[in-house]
Amino acid sequence: VLDEPDFPALGAARVAIVGLGLMGGSLALALRGQCAELIGADVNEVALLAAVERGVVDRAAAFPMRDCDLLVLAAPVRVILAQLAELAQWPGPARPITVLDLGSTKAQIAAAMSALPAGYHPLGGHPMCGKETSGLDQAEGRLFRGRVFVLSPLERTPPGALRLAQALVEAVGALPCHLEAERHDRLAARVSHLPYAAAAALVRAAETLPDEHVWTLAASGFRDTSRLAASEVSMMLDTLLTNRPAVLDSLRRYRAELDDLARLLEAGDEPALRAWLTAARERRRGLFQT
Amino acid sequence: VLDEPDFPALGAARVAIVGLGLMGGSLALALRGQCAELIGADVNEVALLAAVERGVVDRAAAFPMRDCDLLVLAAPVRVILAQLAELAQWPGPARPITVLDLGSTKAQIAAAMSALPAGYHPLGGHPMCGKETSGLDQAEGRLFRGRVFVLSPLERTPPGALRLAQALVEAVGALPCHLEAERHDRLAARVSHLPYAAAAALVRAAETLPDEHVWTLAASGFRDTSRLAASEVSMMLDTLLTNRPAVLDSLRRYRAELDDLARLLEAGDEPALRAWLTAARERRRGLFQT
Repeated sequence: VLDEPDFPALGAARVAIVGLGLMGGSLALALRGQCAELIGADVNEVALLAAVERGVVDRAAAFPMRDCDLLVLAAPVRVILAQLAELAQWPGPARPITVLDLGSTKAQIAAAMSALPAGYHPLGGHPMCGKETSGLDQAEGRLFRGRVFVLSPLERTPPGALRLAQALVEAVGALPCHLEAERHDRLAARVSHLPYAAAAALVRAAETLPDEHVWTLAASGFRDTSRLAASEVSMMLDTLLTNRPAVLDSLRRYRAELDDLARLLEAGDEPALRAWLTAARERRRGLFQT
Repeated sequence: VLDEPDFPALGAARVAIVGLGLMGGSLALALRGQCAELIGADVNEVALLAAVERGVVDRAAAFPMRDCDLLVLAAPVRVILAQLAELAQWPGPARPITVLDLGSTKAQIAAAMSALPAGYHPLGGHPMCGKETSGLDQAEGRLFRGRVFVLSPLERTPPGALRLAQALVEAVGALPCHLEAERHDRLAARVSHLPYAAAAALVRAAETLPDEHVWTLAASGFRDTSRLAASEVSMMLDTLLTNRPAVLDSLRRYRAELDDLARLLEAGDEPALRAWLTAARERRRGLFQT
């Protein structure tokens, strides 16, 4: 019988965060004082230095996987995929390292994680708390509080690694939700990636109206409905491209709903139109206070 | 030469507001102390009594057009249309009355206004400050501050009536914007009615995913993008049905943008996809701070 490797409690763990943008920086701030050491890594050396100077992390490291217990990958999805491919090319670590990522899609990352050498104990993660802003300056330790934090363990993920990740989720005040990677991606496509696409298309549709006053009349309704269109393009491009089947399926469903609406409006079918709008209103009012 | 009728300054005007919901109630609160008298009317007698008791209006009147200088119609569009049709069946007032409405669409209202008997001096109005909530309880005097307030004078609108309406817009802290009714409707379809349709379709598209966790993963992005779906259905139904050609045109344009996105994503055309998303992002970031 293979012994389970030894995983430290979060308070005794050295946590390395690779990517100190909005997510990684916020995670570092939220973990302050709750783990043995916070190690930062970022390709942007200016940002990395600033993070050390501001005390967001305890120290910087070019190769943080050398001496950490928990490695958190907090970059856009395709950067995480490249990092995992790189890790897979080298021998595994002498001591067990739990690998958790914060990417917006999980299936391709789970596949890449399954190719990691022994000694790495990977699982996927996704905190549901995006902002349309980015960068360390926007980071805040409260970002995760009360938010759902998806964890996607793989078959190879040992209970100890999952416990450590779960402890991290709870330490930052988030609500853990275990979901298999493909299921996460289908759900995220519908309630996160589709809203982004809808927002961007809305801005573009308004842009095409040849009237100088089109933005004059854009008020709080337009502002909120289009907010996600301001999201960082590289991050969202990675998200859409690594979740294509589910995003395309969501776009098809969305367009079908819009077609139904157009048909009912064209026909002036008031009872059906009222029912269509009312179903959306009732559901939306049940979900959020505003 | 026909003398222009005599229009009072706002401070000397008796203002009657028909419909004391979110818009009418907020207008009353914003006008407090800035006109000679505030008269309220509402089919909902309980709400009307509450408005008098709370001092939102000075008094209630069943037929407020009998002794007011400025009649403000603050109901959903098709209710306003019915009110205008009713006014058109009776002889005009002995003293000039400026008639201003706050409806979300302007072309059908302008047509109904042009049938009013002499003595009424109508023009359209639309403050661009909706909320997804409704009712007098939600009313607030600051609602109009800094917001665009469209005024759509008709050919028959005398300068004095326009001046009085303009004084009202400025008194509530809004920014007047003069737009011809059809032009207003085309613009509002694109930046107000389309966002509502997009939000409602988004809720419906998520609803169709057969997974109990679909709402678990709906976070702030979904919340904001779908906010307008919670709008009052009767009000929005009136809006869509009285602006059908422009709303259908906006839906077509929106649908075309979504089709483009799906095509680029399906093809995996990364440069074109990046350009498509970047154009939306740049425009959105130029419009609002968040």
